[in-house]
Amino acid sequence: MSTPSPPANLLDAKRIEALIDARFPQIHSGGRNLVIEEAGQRFARVRLKADPRNTRPGGTISGVAMFALADFSVYVAIIGSLGEAGFDAVTSSLNINFLARPEARDLTAGVKLLRLGRRLAVGEVEIYSEGAGDMVAHAIASYALPMG
Amino acid sequence: MSTPSPPANLLDAKRIEALIDARFPQIHSGGRNLVIEEAGQRFARVRLKADPRNTRPGGTISGVAMFALADFSVYVAIIGSLGEAGFDAVTSSLNINFLARPEARDLTAGVKLLRLGRRLAVGEVEIYSEGAGDMVAHAIASYALPMG
Amino acid sequence: MSTPSPPANLLDAKRIEALIDARFPQIHSGGRNLVIEEAGQRFARVRLKADPRNTRPGGTISGVAMFALADFSVYVAIIGSLGEAGFDAVTSSLNINFLARPEARDLTAGVKLLRLGRRLAVGEVEIYSEGAGDMVAHAIASYALPMG
Amino acid sequence: MSTPSPPANLLDAKRIEALIDARFPQIHSGGRNLVIEEAGQRFARVRLKADPRNTRPGGTISGVAMFALADFSVYVAIIGSLGEAGFDAVTSSLNINFLARPEARDLTAGVKLLRLGRRLAVGEVEIYSEGAGDMVAHAIASYALPMG
Repeated sequence: MSTPSPPANLLDAKRIEALIDARFPQIHSGGRNLVIEEAGQRFARVRLKADPRNTRPGGTISGVAMFALADFSVYVAIIGSLGEAGFDAVTSSLNINFLARPEARDLTAGVKLLRLGRRLAVGEVEIYSEGAGDMVAHAIASYALPMG
Repeated sequence: MSTPSPPANLLDAKRIEALIDARFPQIHSGGRNLVIEEAGQRFARVRLKADPRNTRPGGTISGVAMFALADFSVYVAIIGSLGEAGFDAVTSSLNINFLARPEARDLTAGVKLLRLGRRLAVGEVEIYSEGAGDMVAHAIASYALPMG
Repeated sequence: MSTPSPPANLLDAKRIEALIDARFPQIHSGGRNLVIEEAGQRFARVRLKADPRNTRPGGTISGVAMFALADFSVYVAIIGSLGEAGFDAVTSSLNINFLARPEARDLTAGVKLLRLGRRLAVGEVEIYSEGAGDMVAHAIASYALPMG
Repeated sequence: MSTPSPPANLLDAKRIEALIDARFPQIHSGGRNLVIEEAGQRFARVRLKADPRNTRPGGTISGVAMFALADFSVYVAIIGSLGEAGFDAVTSSLNINFLARPEARDLTAGVKLLRLGRRLAVGEVEIYSEGAGDMVAHAIASYALPMG
């Protein structure tokens, strides 16, 4: 991506998406609704496309879909930082705060890794609803990293 | 259920399930996999049936499915405690720790409400895998309660 | 402070500090080490001065002191937003991640309120060590607000 | 303690207390108020004695003191499980929910380790106020473990 000195194994958004598709095809069972827009050293941006599976009566997006978006986005930022070595990272905890009820529109998750140690990564996720100003959810996720 | 002096509006597991089915039919889109086994004053027990949607390659249950189970189970315990007044409760935060990788078998969530105030309920969730001894996930969820 | 249209009851950092000193003198028992640097609509910045009570052998700041700093800073941002009506806010939950071991130097907490509803405020806290680039701790705190 | 087959390095409550006193004398600066009542394989029970430093006007115990009690108690349970190898464990995150305002009396924290892996321990803490029935606070703490 655009970091000053990318590691040799750094993958861009398209390449990460292709690799995840190959390894975890079930993520898209029922139709692709998670789209990696950007990924790189310690960051990622992922879009959740609104569709009948994640919208709810009254016109909102389900909390489960926001959890899935947050968890997946941190995973993408880890792979963007570590390359293929990041694929074996596993979620150890996730704390999510629901701040405002989103409309039934696409959501965008912006991830920043606050910590990327040898054993543990901690990512912060801000989720916004397309076309709206206020954050709709905020999450902190910890991932256990595979040891080299 | 079996509490000493149940409030008049207390609903049992079957009745809660029927009411939730009527209000939120989309929960079961793709097939019913959340089954309320017990519910009452400040507690609930809910089963997540393993199926192709929530199992993952290598034979495990997805973290997203465990989040959905935890969130739903606390909601059921709130309805078990408050009756229909609990239907408008909304999740304000959820913190989940993944403790061990479950096998691709049914999961059972046991909920205890640690706090049931006028404005906020806090529920603790212990998730076990069928036939295994150790807890596989633990969650704490806060719900904002509708004001009477 | 510097917001475009401050509410009539908005208090500045010095005034908030004086009011907190008057109401909670025990915060400074043993010596004043929490200093409000800025406060206003949905934000605050508070300094924790390193002193023998909060430093630890090997030259670091205790986790308890970082918790206290995070909790206090969100409280200050609530008062900066609501004025004296905020004094009765009480912490309902706090989630803190320790990211890096700080040196035994002053810490600065920057708070942004992610949500300021009628009943609940949610604040995000970033803690930095003086003179160092990386965040040393991150917290999310929820406060129950007094009802008018 | 009373586990069926204690590891050779298992320390009892008194021995853990003596070792912690020797390594971290500053914990008791201002007077000893944390007392280890029991510790063993994956559990601990610690008392926080009410004193002027941790009581607050109106007659309650400070949230900071409850955080400190929770954090310390999980640390004790790790040492009770791993022996002296546990001394280098460090808190990576702590999530605390304040459930009810305690009276200005002693608090007791009961810890159960939900996970004790090679790299990470997760402890659950229930805090009760002496002589009262309801839980006053609940915490989940993660500790990074030293690698052998």
